[in-house]
Amino acid sequence: MPPDVFFSGPGLDRADAARGEPATLEAFARSPQARQLAWADGLPALDAGGRLCWEPVTEPALFLGLDGDTPCFSPIGAGGGDLRAQFGALAHLSAAEAPTFAAATSLASWHRRHGYCAACGQPSAIVRGGWSRQCGACGTEHYPRVDPVVIMLAEHDGRVLLGRQPRFPPHRYSALAGFVEVGESLEAAVARELFEEAGVRATNVRYVASQPWPFPSSLMIACLASVGDEALTIDHAELEDARWFSRDAVAAAMAGDADASFIAPPPFAIAHSLLACWLAA
Amino acid sequence: MPPDVFFSGPGLDRADAARGEPATLEAFARSPQARQLAWADGLPALDAGGRLCWEPVTEPALFLGLDGDTPCFSPIGAGGGDLRAQFGALAHLSAAEAPTFAAATSLASWHRRHGYCAACGQPSAIVRGGWSRQCGACGTEHYPRVDPVVIMLAEHDGRVLLGRQPRFPPHRYSALAGFVEVGESLEAAVARELFEEAGVRATNVRYVASQPWPFPSSLMIACLASVGDEALTIDHAELEDARWFSRDAVAAAMAGDADASFIAPPPFAIAHSLLACWLAA
Repeated sequence: MPPDVFFSGPGLDRADAARGEPATLEAFARSPQARQLAWADGLPALDAGGRLCWEPVTEPALFLGLDGDTPCFSPIGAGGGDLRAQFGALAHLSAAEAPTFAAATSLASWHRRHGYCAACGQPSAIVRGGWSRQCGACGTEHYPRVDPVVIMLAEHDGRVLLGRQPRFPPHRYSALAGFVEVGESLEAAVARELFEEAGVRATNVRYVASQPWPFPSSLMIACLASVGDEALTIDHAELEDARWFSRDAVAAAMAGDADASFIAPPPFAIAHSLLACWLAA
Repeated sequence: MPPDVFFSGPGLDRADAARGEPATLEAFARSPQARQLAWADGLPALDAGGRLCWEPVTEPALFLGLDGDTPCFSPIGAGGGDLRAQFGALAHLSAAEAPTFAAATSLASWHRRHGYCAACGQPSAIVRGGWSRQCGACGTEHYPRVDPVVIMLAEHDGRVLLGRQPRFPPHRYSALAGFVEVGESLEAAVARELFEEAGVRATNVRYVASQPWPFPSSLMIACLASVGDEALTIDHAELEDARWFSRDAVAAAMAGDADASFIAPPPFAIAHSLLACWLAA
């Protein structure tokens, strides 16, 4: 049974064919029911119920897709916002609209940071309703980045390995994670990261779930892995601490018990879904 | 049991910590056993046995990693090469060295196509042993792209859906595929691609395997999906044809039978592993 993962629903109909048709996009933008995403403090604005806020179309830079017959656009957006503001928004955001929040946030962020052609250095311009940029000088087309990240629970003798980064809130522990590199399978990336960060040798890597994570554009891929030897060699450049936690300790943290030995990752993080999945197995 | 997938083995020890230490990289490049990859016709050169060819270090631009105690480098490489040359090389390439071939090919290709800062348009320079580029003007650091692609078999009533692109060799059919977009989980991307390309509604998406695919830097993620209705609406902008194939038809094609109804994807493609996995289930 796949776990419930925030951000991972279907979202809008992306209507890919329309992106390549400027006349269709113009007609969408002019249609009476068309709407554009409102932004506040660098993120899509949310109402009191955690739902996205929409306004009349004034800057149809990015075509997010169709909600039924309603064309949905976004301006490039205001950008960034710090991690605390982001996490505050996520704790409040409606699960049904989370995929649209993620797509708009990642897409807008990519445009803000990629105004020039990496191949020749000249300015590039938005094409395909914001789903690519094309260089005005050399013609190279550039596509929004999606950066795969593996995030994993190593298991040994009924316990799981969790770590904490220095930037985490006090007592928070979570699954180890790292970017997948060129020339690597997901399984190879899981094994490399576990060895680099904790000195453990993984076998039997199993996929669990995936999640788009829009800060700025990661694709989180959650896995379980078996480890034969519990001895840890922690990379303190990456992690402040890492340790093995029993099933009871994880259950207490996930339940938010006051005397739990650590604080679990928040429900919108795929690490939370991964721990829930492991507990349920 | 995970399937056997070309390119997906562990490869070299990437020795991540050394990348951030210029003195270590210089010592590696000067060591007597250090070697650099030889290139021919835009791809890593192969000997008669399909193994990578190495030469003394003259241009330690990219630090590929350690093979035991042997530091392995690559120049930026010659670039591109057409699809036929690439597939010719793959049919010949040693499986054990395929991960190194993939990492070097993707990394070299990324550097050739990303000489300028996408944030400000000024030239960027290689840092971290080739695992990133930094802008000399604004300081932005850029990392090699890894572009996740979903590739999937839709199943209905014991048959699987395969399609062919116009560029395929005659009679070749393979799994449908497409790039994962920002704001999408893998499962959402599988469902979107199957609906866009073939008009079928997927449920119950299951991960099977992954593979780095270095033309130029895809991460192939292979899945199975269930489909409730076999009616197809083919997007002829993407596919020349798509149809359902029985288990017997797939078995005949995978065995290379002369009277098979189609030609299966080659063994180095993850679509081949995916079909083999489906047949074995």
